[in-house]
Amino acid sequence: MAPGTILGMSAAGPQDPRFADVGRLVVRCPDRPGIVAVLSRLMADTGANIIESQQHSSDPVGGTFTLRLEFVLADLATRRVELERALAALAGEWQFTWRLVEATRKPRLAVFVSKADHVLQELLYRVGSGDLRAEVAAVVSNHPDLEPVAKAHGVPFHHVPVTPDTKDAAEARALELVGDVDLVVLARYMQIVSADFCSRFPERLINIHHSFLPAFVGANPYRAAHDRGVKLIGATAHYVTAELDAGPIIEQEVARVDHRATVEDMRRIGRYVERQVLAQAVTWHVEDRVIVEGDRTIVFA
Amino acid sequence: MAPGTILGMSAAGPQDPRFADVGRLVVRCPDRPGIVAVLSRLMADTGANIIESQQHSSDPVGGTFTLRLEFVLADLATRRVELERALAALAGEWQFTWRLVEATRKPRLAVFVSKADHVLQELLYRVGSGDLRAEVAAVVSNHPDLEPVAKAHGVPFHHVPVTPDTKDAAEARALELVGDVDLVVLARYMQIVSADFCSRFPERLINIHHSFLPAFVGANPYRAAHDRGVKLIGATAHYVTAELDAGPIIEQEVARVDHRATVEDMRRIGRYVERQVLAQAVTWHVEDRVIVEGDRTIVFA
Amino acid sequence: MAPGTILGMSAAGPQDPRFADVGRLVVRCPDRPGIVAVLSRLMADTGANIIESQQHSSDPVGGTFTLRLEFVLADLATRRVELERALAALAGEWQFTWRLVEATRKPRLAVFVSKADHVLQELLYRVGSGDLRAEVAAVVSNHPDLEPVAKAHGVPFHHVPVTPDTKDAAEARALELVGDVDLVVLARYMQIVSADFCSRFPERLINIHHSFLPAFVGANPYRAAHDRGVKLIGATAHYVTAELDAGPIIEQEVARVDHRATVEDMRRIGRYVERQVLAQAVTWHVEDRVIVEGDRTIVFA
Amino acid sequence: MAPGTILGMSAAGPQDPRFADVGRLVVRCPDRPGIVAVLSRLMADTGANIIESQQHSSDPVGGTFTLRLEFVLADLATRRVELERALAALAGEWQFTWRLVEATRKPRLAVFVSKADHVLQELLYRVGSGDLRAEVAAVVSNHPDLEPVAKAHGVPFHHVPVTPDTKDAAEARALELVGDVDLVVLARYMQIVSADFCSRFPERLINIHHSFLPAFVGANPYRAAHDRGVKLIGATAHYVTAELDAGPIIEQEVARVDHRATVEDMRRIGRYVERQVLAQAVTWHVEDRVIVEGDRTIVFA
Repeated sequence: MAPGTILGMSAAGPQDPRFADVGRLVVRCPDRPGIVAVLSRLMADTGANIIESQQHSSDPVGGTFTLRLEFVLADLATRRVELERALAALAGEWQFTWRLVEATRKPRLAVFVSKADHVLQELLYRVGSGDLRAEVAAVVSNHPDLEPVAKAHGVPFHHVPVTPDTKDAAEARALELVGDVDLVVLARYMQIVSADFCSRFPERLINIHHSFLPAFVGANPYRAAHDRGVKLIGATAHYVTAELDAGPIIEQEVARVDHRATVEDMRRIGRYVERQVLAQAVTWHVEDRVIVEGDRTIVFA
Repeated sequence: MAPGTILGMSAAGPQDPRFADVGRLVVRCPDRPGIVAVLSRLMADTGANIIESQQHSSDPVGGTFTLRLEFVLADLATRRVELERALAALAGEWQFTWRLVEATRKPRLAVFVSKADHVLQELLYRVGSGDLRAEVAAVVSNHPDLEPVAKAHGVPFHHVPVTPDTKDAAEARALELVGDVDLVVLARYMQIVSADFCSRFPERLINIHHSFLPAFVGANPYRAAHDRGVKLIGATAHYVTAELDAGPIIEQEVARVDHRATVEDMRRIGRYVERQVLAQAVTWHVEDRVIVEGDRTIVFA
Repeated sequence: MAPGTILGMSAAGPQDPRFADVGRLVVRCPDRPGIVAVLSRLMADTGANIIESQQHSSDPVGGTFTLRLEFVLADLATRRVELERALAALAGEWQFTWRLVEATRKPRLAVFVSKADHVLQELLYRVGSGDLRAEVAAVVSNHPDLEPVAKAHGVPFHHVPVTPDTKDAAEARALELVGDVDLVVLARYMQIVSADFCSRFPERLINIHHSFLPAFVGANPYRAAHDRGVKLIGATAHYVTAELDAGPIIEQEVARVDHRATVEDMRRIGRYVERQVLAQAVTWHVEDRVIVEGDRTIVFA
Repeated sequence: MAPGTILGMSAAGPQDPRFADVGRLVVRCPDRPGIVAVLSRLMADTGANIIESQQHSSDPVGGTFTLRLEFVLADLATRRVELERALAALAGEWQFTWRLVEATRKPRLAVFVSKADHVLQELLYRVGSGDLRAEVAAVVSNHPDLEPVAKAHGVPFHHVPVTPDTKDAAEARALELVGDVDLVVLARYMQIVSADFCSRFPERLINIHHSFLPAFVGANPYRAAHDRGVKLIGATAHYVTAELDAGPIIEQEVARVDHRATVEDMRRIGRYVERQVLAQAVTWHVEDRVIVEGDRTIVFA
């Protein structure tokens, strides 16, 4: 038996009956009375059974309305076209954009790492357990250290060294190796990716920063946190934009430390916060629960 | 200036413009496709602007559907009748029950206490600050100790002593003094109220129990928690039913303790958990965010 | 009965038997093997019964050693001199400084506020309940709004208006009115105090800042937090130094918010975090549990 | 390379310089003035440099005193005998028992599991990362499912089926296979071990129970928690005694759930609480931070 199969990666596979015929619809439009009635009517007429419904209006007057529905529709794969046609027929009048997803489809992730394994291990564990319904298509690293971890889970590993001089070429090479993915996760990659790289994955590039942003932007945040004498250390998962550590925040969490904690203690404690925060953010993202609105996110948790 | 006015109790009074024309609608019915479409259509046709919407289905197939809407409807006080008529016209076909509330209306609370003041103080503070939009109509106690606290906030205080022999008469007397109230809050009352008393306030009688229920039912839970050596102590706010400490739970919270904590330390730490948990539960209740479903609650927080 | 007496401010007064003969000793010196043996021997020979002991070394080699003892010594008030003499006899050889406090002594606080009452109310409540063993000697404000709150607790209130032009004079006037106090607490004072003011209360001036420092230094942190889209809001209690919001942190805490939270919601939620954090910090300070070490604090919680 | 080596299990091996010459001393005796002075003097005279010191008295009068020291003593392995001789010379007079441990020594663990892998994976991850300084000597299970997980970490796996009829024999067989270990961890073993088994590992047998004990003792606690409508679910790590789920608690933690959570959701959320709680408890145990005192534990965290 190959090591890659050992951790139950097929535990919640595409055939998982819990997800058959489950669909997710996210709709965004200018807020206007009647939009919920129209969409609810459409779903009811289609025969969809709503199992989860969340909505948000950035401002009831003149704001943007966002609706996320999770529903069961018998024979969804076939009837999806019909549903899309019905949505398209209404989209013009109500000026909405939409995204319709079949829950059986597992998004493909590329995970970029450096030498630290804790976040990668957690993502692979959650994928294996089925708690994170995604497929890790590739692990990319500027160091060879974590190849065995990827291999143990049956995931292709690409070692792409990066130096200041070869950064553009390295990014290009990584993109080529990774191929077509739905989401890129920077799981303690420790490299600043280029603006061009960011622009290829708009709202599809998630980073974990090891501080409670916006405190301690940049390098060595645990050292900075220690020097400032904070009583809580944190981690922040955010979409990456061209500006360093400034993209829309998806999730944050903190852990308590006291005067005894050295920088090394903070790093150790922080690792558990980081893995939790990034895994949560990625899970919400692949379940279409995160919607970017300007510099902020809506999270239908 | 009377002491009762000092704590800003009018800070968020009935004329608070934030609540003018704000309504809340809670609808419950057997789950059935189309119910959201019908209700959304009704609200849209009425001209209501939905500002918050939450729903829950106990089971998409054969379960009970619950919807809570918060909306703005110009001239609500006048148009309320029209809205109720429209709801009544649909209620039969969809088998729904509903509750329509104007947010400007402040529910009247009776708060039952004994000697401990911490929970009462917190409720009065939150009412005064406007964070808890309610009116404390009366404070009732089996001891005279907290009369000054009630008086300082301009709230009538009724001392109704209770002995095992006089319990029924005392309850009757308390009810008479309290008059017509929307909610009775047992804020560390330390008396077990009768089944008859409970039955007069179905889903309108909230107690704070000073443990993480169902652990440590009954008297002296901090002593029991200490003896069991727990590492977290808790508090539970729940609706009171005839069975002791067994009613539907609204809110729970815990605080960490360690081996140094004596029973007295647990009581002291616990007081801050109790006041937080009860105040939160009462706030949710008066905002019509809590719906009892069998032995459990739906909380649209 | 005066309103000031109603909230049980004498509940844990100087005669509280729990604190009779209880002393606290804090010793600091260069770390060197044997210091604990010497101090333990001294206490044992004196007949003191140690009830709490905590120690910290900034670095076992070449660092600073800090020891905090809580002990019972029969007839402490009388025997204190003898204990001090014994400490003095050793201080030179071991190069230590010390602070010896009788627990019955309640530190005198001056609380500076502006218009918001939540932190002041909490401090007064905790003083009244005995959970915070201190005496509020005076409340000072640049606005008259909170005079009734102070008066209701029997605390002198001084209205000292401040304008950019009169700041120095206002501070001088406030200091004169406040007189001799052990600790100054800026309980949402909303004014930046002068470097001169800071220097009069070294390690005895505590501020509550309504953010998770060092994020959102300066004015309007909730607005800034909202605009940045953080998922946790925080509060920080710190000693005030000449540099704005940069003094040693005593305590921090956070609360979760989501995309629905407006700036006003964050302010409301934040008030409960602020009151908790400041009250905790002041409590630790008056119990001699906080020791400043450079830009950081040791907290023997 | 064998899969077992890939996860960095040697990251913090016996030669880890951070632990060379580090010792831990735990002393317990009747509380009596002077004990700290005597022990501190002994350590100072030996030349040990104290890097951590914690103490607790169950009652300053007539109670039991517990001291835990962590220290650096050059050439500890050699000088250990001398230190033990010095302790033995004092033990009679002060009636103390002691435990002296070299930090380089890694305790040997036997981990008993059933089919669920989450807690085992976490323990193996923490051992591999060096955060949990222990050696997993064997994994035992009544099912074969987790053999690949153990093997991937290079840990011997023993499949010992259990039926009601074969329980005694199965326990005997497991003990034989496991051999000499310092600690047995029931990591969701799902079997009630016999009183005889418990008695072989006094204060060296840790279980994770998937509820906030003492709530929901026994089987299927998530189902019971769901039915009771709790708002927090918990997990409890405790030493196992002959009485089911009643042994001294080491650590507890909770996670928030709401009305949407099904029993299955609670199980999923709970798994993350369980792994955190058990890993923390085991870590504290192997660092000699947990001392059983009657039905409770002292945890020098």
